[in-house]
Amino acid sequence: MNAIHIIAPQSGAAFELKKGDVLTVIDPMGQQVSDMVLFNKEDLKERISSGKTMDFEESILLTKGNFLWSNRSNKMMEIRDDTNGRNDFLLAPCSPETFQIMYDNPTYHPSCLENLHRNLMSYGIELDDIPTAFNIFMNVKFDEKGKLSVLPPTSKPGDLVRFKAEMDLIVGLTACSAEDSNGGTFKPIHYIITDGNGFLTEQS
Amino acid sequence: MNAIHIIAPQSGAAFELKKGDVLTVIDPMGQQVSDMVLFNKEDLKERISSGKTMDFEESILLTKGNFLWSNRSNKMMEIRDDTNGRNDFLLAPCSPETFQIMYDNPTYHPSCLENLHRNLMSYGIELDDIPTAFNIFMNVKFDEKGKLSVLPPTSKPGDLVRFKAEMDLIVGLTACSAEDSNGGTFKPIHYIITDGNGFLTEQS
Repeated sequence: MNAIHIIAPQSGAAFELKKGDVLTVIDPMGQQVSDMVLFNKEDLKERISSGKTMDFEESILLTKGNFLWSNRSNKMMEIRDDTNGRNDFLLAPCSPETFQIMYDNPTYHPSCLENLHRNLMSYGIELDDIPTAFNIFMNVKFDEKGKLSVLPPTSKPGDLVRFKAEMDLIVGLTACSAEDSNGGTFKPIHYIITDGNGFLTEQS
Repeated sequence: MNAIHIIAPQSGAAFELKKGDVLTVIDPMGQQVSDMVLFNKEDLKERISSGKTMDFEESILLTKGNFLWSNRSNKMMEIRDDTNGRNDFLLAPCSPETFQIMYDNPTYHPSCLENLHRNLMSYGIELDDIPTAFNIFMNVKFDEKGKLSVLPPTSKPGDLVRFKAEMDLIVGLTACSAEDSNGGTFKPIHYIITDGNGFLTEQS
């Protein structure tokens, strides 16, 4: 039993949460993004939706007090704490094509989409079913004309975001693989799972 | 053969486009939103993605010159003309739950999600597979803190957006059913399909 789970740089993990469990995602070294996707454990066709979340929360930016919603208009998680305060829900997980198309890089490059799929496939989740992720610590700037720029995260070592599960969930989580999103270097992501009383759960 | 297709207020349509076809979506009376979703006709698991589109186009706001991208990082449509110039790609299609949760309306209310599904189901597309739509003429304001407000469309009678298909597509299109998005009244949406040479296609 190890309280702190470690996601190595440019990799990912998948795990279950019970309703009421608390997931704490930590940026141990600072300036590291973590992409998170959610599926209803009882019916994988229900999944996290950026469009429904921004609609119900009436905001592009989501932090403490906001909920993450599903494509079926159900609450999947509540954001209970956010010591950094800047996350993104606009941009899709980086994929092999991201690096070919945006960065003109023809060779293999690790990506969040691949790392999410690699870990979620054992739950029966297919590549095409992975939606736009909630990008923890990601710092996407927008101006009044809607122009987007990806800046280094503002997160410092030890910054964390804490989520409470509002239903039984399958979670996919990464340490993001894109140079631009992470200040040019790749760091690990740590996470801890506790139950509603603050005790470590069986899978912790 | 009728050149102009009419979508009645608070309803929808679904149809096919061949690669190179041009779809013109017209707001005949002004201030009317039309939600549009796209699927690759050859493989319905490939569909329009707000997250991929905002990533590749580096903008929240999309207009003439921008492309609409799929979850597999392929171009699905190019926006060739946009006489109004304001569309939305943040918010999910209004659904029965939208009216219950956001507007505290417990009774039945027509919605874009239902109208999209009703028309797309004959192509084998399920409710859960309908992604965040490209909301033509929709006027969603955001401030520097990310706060969102739905305003009446700025579109005037006869305003249009013209799209060129970049692959063979199944298209779902609505005349939106939400009071707030349409200046409080429900109007029809018109559309025309032509081939790359400007001639009406067989289904027109």
